[in-house]
Amino acid sequence: MIKDSVIALKGISSKLSSIDVDIRNRALLSIEKGLLDNIDYILSENRKDLDSSQGLNNSLYKRLILSRDKIETIISGIQEVRGLKDPLGQVQLKRELDSNLTLTRFSVPIGVIGVIFESRPDALVQISSLFIKSGNCGILKGGKEAIHTNRALFKVIRESLFTVSETLASSLELAESREDIKEILELDQYIDLMIPRGGNELVQYIKNNTKIPVMGHTDGICHLFMSKDGDIDMGLKLTLDSKCQYPAVCNAIETLLVEESIAKEFLPRVKTFLEDNKVELRGCDKTVEIIDINRATEVDWDTEYNDYILSIKIVSDLEDAISFINKHGSGHTDCIVTDNSESWDKFLMNVDSASVFLNASTRFADGNRYGFGAEVGISTNKIHSRGPVGLEGLTIYKYKLIGHGDIVADYASGKKCYSHKDIK
Amino acid sequence: MIKDSVIALKGISSKLSSIDVDIRNRALLSIEKGLLDNIDYILSENRKDLDSSQGLNNSLYKRLILSRDKIETIISGIQEVRGLKDPLGQVQLKRELDSNLTLTRFSVPIGVIGVIFESRPDALVQISSLFIKSGNCGILKGGKEAIHTNRALFKVIRESLFTVSETLASSLELAESREDIKEILELDQYIDLMIPRGGNELVQYIKNNTKIPVMGHTDGICHLFMSKDGDIDMGLKLTLDSKCQYPAVCNAIETLLVEESIAKEFLPRVKTFLEDNKVELRGCDKTVEIIDINRATEVDWDTEYNDYILSIKIVSDLEDAISFINKHGSGHTDCIVTDNSESWDKFLMNVDSASVFLNASTRFADGNRYGFGAEVGISTNKIHSRGPVGLEGLTIYKYKLIGHGDIVADYASGKKCYSHKDIK
Repeated sequence: MIKDSVIALKGISSKLSSIDVDIRNRALLSIEKGLLDNIDYILSENRKDLDSSQGLNNSLYKRLILSRDKIETIISGIQEVRGLKDPLGQVQLKRELDSNLTLTRFSVPIGVIGVIFESRPDALVQISSLFIKSGNCGILKGGKEAIHTNRALFKVIRESLFTVSETLASSLELAESREDIKEILELDQYIDLMIPRGGNELVQYIKNNTKIPVMGHTDGICHLFMSKDGDIDMGLKLTLDSKCQYPAVCNAIETLLVEESIAKEFLPRVKTFLEDNKVELRGCDKTVEIIDINRATEVDWDTEYNDYILSIKIVSDLEDAISFINKHGSGHTDCIVTDNSESWDKFLMNVDSASVFLNASTRFADGNRYGFGAEVGISTNKIHSRGPVGLEGLTIYKYKLIGHGDIVADYASGKKCYSHKDIK
Repeated sequence: MIKDSVIALKGISSKLSSIDVDIRNRALLSIEKGLLDNIDYILSENRKDLDSSQGLNNSLYKRLILSRDKIETIISGIQEVRGLKDPLGQVQLKRELDSNLTLTRFSVPIGVIGVIFESRPDALVQISSLFIKSGNCGILKGGKEAIHTNRALFKVIRESLFTVSETLASSLELAESREDIKEILELDQYIDLMIPRGGNELVQYIKNNTKIPVMGHTDGICHLFMSKDGDIDMGLKLTLDSKCQYPAVCNAIETLLVEESIAKEFLPRVKTFLEDNKVELRGCDKTVEIIDINRATEVDWDTEYNDYILSIKIVSDLEDAISFINKHGSGHTDCIVTDNSESWDKFLMNVDSASVFLNASTRFADGNRYGFGAEVGISTNKIHSRGPVGLEGLTIYKYKLIGHGDIVADYASGKKCYSHKDIK
């Protein structure tokens, strides 16, 4: 019964926040060592999954494949998490209510978190290492195509944890079946948060079938707005990176917005440039009057293609672009290309998305790129509070990225690398 | 149709974050003036509600009554919110990803929030002022007993806002019927958050009937743990304040835990002291062997009395107390009375509640007392994230209060007053 496991996790969760960061880091180190020592075993289990997944489509199959190199990359991901500052015990507010009566707010783990993730073996390790470092208990359910690999990885992780801390070893559980998920969704008394990763359909299913708070994003419909005050060459470069650097992910753009007054100059170059890169273009009525591409329908504006397809819409001005994004976007990441600081200010404040970029590719919206070491997912949720909720509890944050035409391709290729230096 | 109003709010919400704090503060000032100028009108509308609420129980009826004094207190509450620092645009993270590629995280409003609140007219004004200051759109539904008062207050608020900003005036809407609530709960596409205030039943109903994230607390089952290393006189004083200073609220204690080794010394004094203050005591098996009170049943440990009733449980030690609190508490506020710093550390880290206190009354768990100016509610939720979720997104906070026997009665009576001085 998965229920018994979850109840046990709940019991353990209150003990995790007092496990010293040195022990949590030693536990991560032990996992790194365990994985390194068990590469052959893990690869042989991965082979079983690959053998039974011959029917899988190419990109899914590729994500399932492990190799010695890939495992080493996964291990260096754990090292990175290990190197990060302790997220627990961070003082966020310290206030004297009266002399000798002091209030402090500090960070603690959330508790028990259920994660449902796609069939990529690196996900299990990444999530586990984030949970160990942040003191959260996890109930982990991976895609069924990776079942043998996940079992092997989980076995190695648990055994590695046991050598450091029995409590940490008991803080993670693996769930395997659809029935497990159904049971988990009923356990709102014991689980603090569900994180579904993967398709819109999965997220909607989870939201419709549980009272547990759900953190996840249903869609990644991102926009790039080429304003009349933007540099055309930069606009082309950013459109290409935002669409093509890796189209199958949520932070790739689906729609290009073009300010009407520069459409005749900009669009023919977009057509040449993107069609050279094998992108299918679909345009609004005004767009197809300027360039010869397929006509977009209303459905296109609300579609996450995750593919080499880009819809193009001509907007009359900045306000029109903002309204369009707030109506059709998914609150994920949107970019404006402009040299006009007033336009940028307005775009930044009025576009209601988690990440709002100036002159930079939407593909930067990612935990690794933001310097978080790793991410458990990208949330389009907007809430976050416990305890007395005052003004601060009524706000949420937004990421502002100010670039100068920066693209992810330069970082992916190794031409540039991240400095991740905090600014005081 | 309430749906049309909510869609309109969604449209307005993205504009609110760029309204300057000076304008938001001027809007609050205008509300203060509007209320002051309309006291007679508001009181006459309040009279209508009072006339049709003769059957209401005494404490509910009392909360419904407005007076000139009470309106002036409400106005000073708005002044306090006006005096607070702008919660928007606060930079939480600023990071150079590369030279000339800068990431900043800053606070923005949540968006459109639905609030369902009890029949106390001050709630409508308090919530409205918090929303105006924090740039959130609100759909407000008050208790039906206060319908005329709420309409009058809302009319004054909206007219006052109109003189300053049409956008702000359009950012709040009043809902009135049960049918409105049903419709609102369907609008997860437009509403970012629901905040139900009031009974457990209401909160459960909301959670069971919507996909909108819900922020609220289902119960306020708070504990005070009298440890063997605590000062007995202080324990008595804190028990009394935590239970009796205002029993009808969520931060009052429902259960007193007593460490076994001091039970014989402590319990007889508790009995005398609390029975003198008209508290009915209900004890566990071991307790009733020491003092002559009613026997508690299993139900008692999970009950929020909101009344002059206190259950008492003898626990064998600190660990036993912590387990009991984590099992039966509601994650709201719990206090330990002790002079042993090791016990405090363990209690603080392992009790999984939003507020954990040392030697201070649980009644301090309140937005005003924490220096937040006002509160929209107390959340027992544990989640909060948007954008890429790294380690920090996997943590939530906890409030630590270190006192020396401090009680709220001293502050309520004016004997002491809050300094609310931030400490660097």
